[in-house]
Amino acid sequence: MDESRIMMAHGGGGSLMNGLIRSLFFNSFDNPVLIRAADAAQLDLPGNRIAFTTDAFVVDPIFFPGGDIGKLAVCGTLNDLAVTGARPLYLSVSFILEEGLRISELKRVVQSMAKTAKDAGVPIVAGDTKVVPKGKGDKIFISTSGVGAVDDKSSDTSEGKSVEAGDCILINGTLGDHGIAVLLQRESFQLHASIQSDCANLYPLIHHLLGVVPETRFMRDATRGGLATVLCELVEKRNFGIELAEDQVPVNPAVVDACELLGMDPLYIANEGKVVIVVPGNEAENALKTLRQHPLGTNAAIVGRVTGENPGKVIMKTALGGKRWIDYLSGDQLPRIC
Amino acid sequence: MDESRIMMAHGGGGSLMNGLIRSLFFNSFDNPVLIRAADAAQLDLPGNRIAFTTDAFVVDPIFFPGGDIGKLAVCGTLNDLAVTGARPLYLSVSFILEEGLRISELKRVVQSMAKTAKDAGVPIVAGDTKVVPKGKGDKIFISTSGVGAVDDKSSDTSEGKSVEAGDCILINGTLGDHGIAVLLQRESFQLHASIQSDCANLYPLIHHLLGVVPETRFMRDATRGGLATVLCELVEKRNFGIELAEDQVPVNPAVVDACELLGMDPLYIANEGKVVIVVPGNEAENALKTLRQHPLGTNAAIVGRVTGENPGKVIMKTALGGKRWIDYLSGDQLPRIC
Repeated sequence: MDESRIMMAHGGGGSLMNGLIRSLFFNSFDNPVLIRAADAAQLDLPGNRIAFTTDAFVVDPIFFPGGDIGKLAVCGTLNDLAVTGARPLYLSVSFILEEGLRISELKRVVQSMAKTAKDAGVPIVAGDTKVVPKGKGDKIFISTSGVGAVDDKSSDTSEGKSVEAGDCILINGTLGDHGIAVLLQRESFQLHASIQSDCANLYPLIHHLLGVVPETRFMRDATRGGLATVLCELVEKRNFGIELAEDQVPVNPAVVDACELLGMDPLYIANEGKVVIVVPGNEAENALKTLRQHPLGTNAAIVGRVTGENPGKVIMKTALGGKRWIDYLSGDQLPRIC
Repeated sequence: MDESRIMMAHGGGGSLMNGLIRSLFFNSFDNPVLIRAADAAQLDLPGNRIAFTTDAFVVDPIFFPGGDIGKLAVCGTLNDLAVTGARPLYLSVSFILEEGLRISELKRVVQSMAKTAKDAGVPIVAGDTKVVPKGKGDKIFISTSGVGAVDDKSSDTSEGKSVEAGDCILINGTLGDHGIAVLLQRESFQLHASIQSDCANLYPLIHHLLGVVPETRFMRDATRGGLATVLCELVEKRNFGIELAEDQVPVNPAVVDACELLGMDPLYIANEGKVVIVVPGNEAENALKTLRQHPLGTNAAIVGRVTGENPGKVIMKTALGGKRWIDYLSGDQLPRIC
């Protein structure tokens, strides 16, 4: 096993950094734009409207069941582009490495990023690496940015401007898998064997859906803060409310058990392969069927509806017939989950 | 003085994070795209060719004479776009904050970013914030990405493919100011009063130069690794060499003194407002005059020439008439300088 480690000089701009970039990053992210090693990549676009997004990833631990920080960073950025209705085209990545990090661990992360990007058909065309002293970072932090193509004909699905009473709310599968998988791995609980992060590139699913249901009115990936936070943001300052049906919200039984044990609510837990979708009521069954046709949507469900009542509020009809108000999380449920 | 501090919950996706984003980031970076708070910004471009770049910033300390980590992050990304011949259009920013950071310090950094971006006329259109526990980061790390417009008629000046023997090498001013200013601030030396970081947005200077000398063959900002590293990269695997004239390289007297005291070489020290420029020999005087007309180029100089001799090597003619070989830095001269 390779026991060599990251040293401060790997970020110093000298020959060690040059060697790391060429041997690891260029080899793994192999593409003609990146290896030109210019200050900025020059890129062609299919049109003159783009989507542009950025995210930082500080997940702890960096490896967890179903993924790692590299796969997470690539998927997270692809998904932020996809939910606006854009087609992901190019990614950039910057690493902040802690002195002492095993180079074998960095390699594993970089290769995971490279595989995820390659599977998505989206090249990583620009990058940067910095090193901080031991105790001033935590193994690896990654920031990824992405550029996507926006079709002039399609509407921006990220704002939900056209959402109205009568619309239906769908989710493409079970909630909370990512957050619980990471938490159990971090805390070394023994009950995590069956829970895997749902970390996935949602673009193929979303592309499939938009082809069949172009009337889709809103999409957002339910990451930090979970489904609850996405819905709270959607209703904020709007003239409609949302009613969720608790018994329709899909959650893995193992995640339900873990949440009960830990006193957590799956509605607020981060997902990394789940998208909240709003479609007109008369398209809901069509959208559901379409989602379920795709491997990333086999457990899709209609979980609620947009109402004229309770404007600005998210209300959950509980399985027992009661109602409770769903608000933003006031504290910090799960730190460093992405 | 505001003594409130960043808590883990500021990164948790709940109401505290929402409040921070709205009160601080949206107010400071005020622009219609960002405040839509979508997953990705949708943006119009003047054409269908872009430059795309990313950088991480981990400078220590975060405030130093002449700048701060926020100004540095914005200028660094603008400069990476500008040296490829692109016009900067849009920026994204992601923050990794350490728990316990004073919110007043974060505000100062964010306002500095906002001012620098506004002065440059380039909006910050997308962002992300993560918080890591105390001792797992160091106050503020920033990753910025940028998108620029590439004119179809202009050639990419970031690779230097057309550089050939007879060309001249210019720099727009004194070397080493940024690195030495940061180092002296970090180590609390008492001799730093007169040394300020050169941190600046180089786009206006570069735009001015390219208007007068469109034949410019290569540009790169001399950041980590300094002028020496830029030139080593330029000659690598090429059929030309470079000869530098030591007595032509501009260095502030205070920086010379500090370098002598610290045993450092200004050729390798990071700059944040200096660009290395290669032009055809017969355009050198014109380029020099053009640079000196601009406030960011008053101390510009022709520092060397491209030679058919010593291919792949950078040679310095010393002030005493000797010659020494300039290679990549082998160790780590100045960690966390940007």
